[in-house]
Amino acid sequence: MGTHGIVLFGHGARDPRWAEPFERLAAKLRAARGATAGPVSLAFLELMTPDLPTAIAEQVAGGCVEITVVPVFFGQGGHVRRDLPNVIDVCRAAHPGVEIRCAGAAGEDDAVLDAIVQYCLQEAGNAG
Amino acid sequence: MGTHGIVLFGHGARDPRWAEPFERLAAKLRAARGATAGPVSLAFLELMTPDLPTAIAEQVAGGCVEITVVPVFFGQGGHVRRDLPNVIDVCRAAHPGVEIRCAGAAGEDDAVLDAIVQYCLQEAGNAG
Repeated sequence: MGTHGIVLFGHGARDPRWAEPFERLAAKLRAARGATAGPVSLAFLELMTPDLPTAIAEQVAGGCVEITVVPVFFGQGGHVRRDLPNVIDVCRAAHPGVEIRCAGAAGEDDAVLDAIVQYCLQEAGNAG
Repeated sequence: MGTHGIVLFGHGARDPRWAEPFERLAAKLRAARGATAGPVSLAFLELMTPDLPTAIAEQVAGGCVEITVVPVFFGQGGHVRRDLPNVIDVCRAAHPGVEIRCAGAAGEDDAVLDAIVQYCLQEAGNAG
């Protein structure tokens, strides 16, 4: 059985510090998956590198036969609904032997929203 | 003691469906705070309404004397580091009797990142 890679896909920004929580997220995910699991990479839609085709090509070159792309976006606007499927199609055509799956936006997940609720309560000091 | 409002501040997008998870987040936060707590509003940086000054003015008009703004962003780029503090300053000047606080980006919170890690593991089917 081949390796299963995960690519965390973010928007990208001009400020390099913007990527810090994505790096922390990737580190946490690597730790949670364990040392023998497949690679975890970052990829960006714009303004930062690598882009998604580059990140996927690197995972394929490294032996991945299955890749899950997780859009780390809060909303599902044009970027996730339109731009991303187009890029995924290009990647699938480039690597026909690799199963490339795309998850829904992480910010739509109920448990993620619940964690944000807890953060808001904490930041507001639970005041009524 | 006056009412404490929370404003969830997002980027905004052209596609109206982009706001759906923000509406769900606001509904969850209202439920978690309970019926007697202060208001929870959405506000956007661009492309969607209301903007932050409008949302804050509405909470002040409704009796809020304390308002916590939570940026619902994954990274802290120019929007959160530069644009948002400028808007917050304008709001503070407009409402000198109201305590307006600004939290860090929700996507930098460790528990939020942990929830995203769990989402990634689930979406990747925990494959190794």
